[in-house]
Order: sequence, then C-alpha cells, then structure tokens
Amino acid sequence: MLKSTPLTTPLGIVLFGHGSRDPLWHLPMQAVAQRIRARDSSVLVQCAYLELTQPDLAEATRSLVAAGAQRITVVPVFLGLGKHAREDLPALVSALRLEYPGLAFTLQCAVGEDPRMIDQLAHIALS
Amino acid sequence: MLKSTPLTTPLGIVLFGHGSRDPLWHLPMQAVAQRIRARDSSVLVQCAYLELTQPDLAEATRSLVAAGAQRITVVPVFLGLGKHAREDLPALVSALRLEYPGLAFTLQCAVGEDPRMIDQLAHIALS
Repeated sequence: MLKSTPLTTPLGIVLFGHGSRDPLWHLPMQAVAQRIRARDSSVLVQCAYLELTQPDLAEATRSLVAAGAQRITVVPVFLGLGKHAREDLPALVSALRLEYPGLAFTLQCAVGEDPRMIDQLAHIALS
Repeated sequence: MLKSTPLTTPLGIVLFGHGSRDPLWHLPMQAVAQRIRARDSSVLVQCAYLELTQPDLAEATRSLVAAGAQRITVVPVFLGLGKHAREDLPALVSALRLEYPGLAFTLQCAVGEDPRMIDQLAHIALS
C-alpha cells in the first residue's frame, strides 16, 4: 500500500508515548510536536498515548484523517524497548490498517533503537 | 564542592532509568553506555535504575567510587518529566551527597528537557 501512495500526499505524524496522569510529563512530547510543525508546516502532528492520557492512537488517527492526512507515520517515543513498543503498539497499528485500508501507515522503530538517538544520548551525557 | 574538584579528576557517569523486568527494555541504555565508553575510554560508566532492575543509584555510585571516580554525573534517561525525574531522583542524589561529602555530584536535567533531544526526536520523526 505504501508504494502506491506518493510521498507528496499530506503526511500525518503521530508521536506515540506511554501517557501519564502528570501534566508535566507531557511537555517534551508536546515540544517535539511543536518543533516538527516549525520545521515543516505542511506536516500534521498529533501526540497519542497508550494509557492514562487522551487521545489514544485511534482518536489521533481519526483527527489526522479529518484534517486531510493520507499517510500516517507513527513514532514510538519509547527509550526502552519493552512490551509497549514491541507488542502493544504494533497490534494497535495493525487494527488501524484494517480500519483504514486506503491509508498508508508507517510504524517507525522505537526512538531508543535509533542509532542517532544513542549517539545523541551519549553526547548529552558527556557534555 | 564542584568548584573545588578539577575537571581532570576521574569522571563517573550514571545513566539512570526507570527499570523494567523485561531484559530487552535495557538494550538502549546499555548501548548508550557502550557508546560513551567508545567515545571516551577514560570515563567510567554505569547504568542504574529506580526500580525493578539492579543496580540502584547507591550501588552504581559505590561501584564507580571503587573504580576510582572522584566526580559523578547522573544523567536522567527519562523522556517524560514525571515524578521520577522531578522528585525521586533528586532525593536520591541528595542522600548520596551526604553519604559522599568528598565526591562532586552533577545531576543533569532529564534528557527529555534537553533541546538537543527535542531536535533529534523531531529530526527522527521527519526522516
């Protein structure tokens, strides 16, 4: 499906994190969403959460589709590669692929798996 | 205390995360520790955890001091700024400052607060 969806179609990004009852917990993810919008104003961005916080992934997807997104990239904002990133999130994305057959979903690897993130964390620790 | 401790004295870095029963959860933090050692072999590095995983911060500190560290930088590996990063960890570091009056502790801000991390996450999401 991805191959048939041109990269020029409107992109929605979901930053997907665990969620927390603590409002301050959310600030970094909200800051990342703002930074993405500042870097590329054509990209639609939503934060979404596994639990304890709204919206969930389905609600964020609905919102992005309503805003015009024709492809969705889901970014797992997890540093640790636990069950949430390895099992729960892929299952949620699989369900959405069935629900939206015309929408191209890309599920990125968890940010903690990305070599650029490992490098950045090492750089920060040494600074 | 920090001002009286020359920056040439042996440095120990503690990467401090939440902890998990899941062994795979730990891989990114261990990868960061390896990357730090690769970038500067003079730096002593330990991972430590708030719960569910050993060692805790006190044990990691003991180990670094036994290995020769005279100053310790604690890096809170939390993307969300919840109670763990804002309250639990500073309390643990305060206790260690009392226990090791000759040791200079630096508690970095949580990695999720660092603008370089926000930039990196935005970059990864857009890539």
